[in-house]
Amino acid sequence: MTDLAIRNATPDDIPAIVAMLADDPLGALRESPDDLAPYLAAFDRLENDPNQHLVVAVRDGRVIGTLQLTIIPGLSRKGATRSVIEAVRVHRDERGSGSGGELIEWAVGTSRDLGCHLVQLTSDKTRTDAHRFYERLGFTASHEGFKLSL
Amino acid sequence: MTDLAIRNATPDDIPAIVAMLADDPLGALRESPDDLAPYLAAFDRLENDPNQHLVVAVRDGRVIGTLQLTIIPGLSRKGATRSVIEAVRVHRDERGSGSGGELIEWAVGTSRDLGCHLVQLTSDKTRTDAHRFYERLGFTASHEGFKLSL
Repeated sequence: MTDLAIRNATPDDIPAIVAMLADDPLGALRESPDDLAPYLAAFDRLENDPNQHLVVAVRDGRVIGTLQLTIIPGLSRKGATRSVIEAVRVHRDERGSGSGGELIEWAVGTSRDLGCHLVQLTSDKTRTDAHRFYERLGFTASHEGFKLSL
Repeated sequence: MTDLAIRNATPDDIPAIVAMLADDPLGALRESPDDLAPYLAAFDRLENDPNQHLVVAVRDGRVIGTLQLTIIPGLSRKGATRSVIEAVRVHRDERGSGSGGELIEWAVGTSRDLGCHLVQLTSDKTRTDAHRFYERLGFTASHEGFKLSL
């Protein structure tokens, strides 16, 4: 298997990213791969925020994974900057290939390079496979994750 | 009891904020209220990021609460912007007064005003009182919250 490249996403990657977001038991209920306009508008907002890093993982010229890393400064923990990982997806053809681990390791390494003291993420309680995956990568399920839809 | 005012934090509020961060079973282990330099540096980073809102709650001229609200654009959920609440603290003299609820309601209302579709936060699994508080305010503990210290 050829190496995985992880690079910043471009507008041309949006269809592949949205297809992965939608190809998921939860995403299928809340994404609209047939209408990319709201995603392109969101991409502009991400590009204009220097604390946002939307990346894709590419193998053999094909986008097979994505995640979003957000850098959040803060006062707590002696003024520690933290990062948040969101929207992690790996194409179904690539699951079990280690690509997900490489994406998370990229996010952890980038967080360290940018001076973060903590990396955090939340995962829906129904995604038990994902929970084991994050624990294998060294994360601890120490927190309850609360959401409120507006 | 006089009304609560919620306003953006200023550098003059840092000692009161850090005192609240430290006056907590978890915060006592990781804050340094006798050395404010790292907090002032972090405050500068917050001030330079338009997606960060660090606020204080003030009653009778005294800072009695704080939280940090971060606005995060993203592709998932049809390009939905979300917000994250961090570092919620209420002075021990004010607990049970409704101040914490007013702070969270401020964060939810501001998130709505800024076009967010989702508000999220994590709370340490040991903070069971906080979990009931967030559930009363309409939040759902739908996610596992993972952390990795760097």
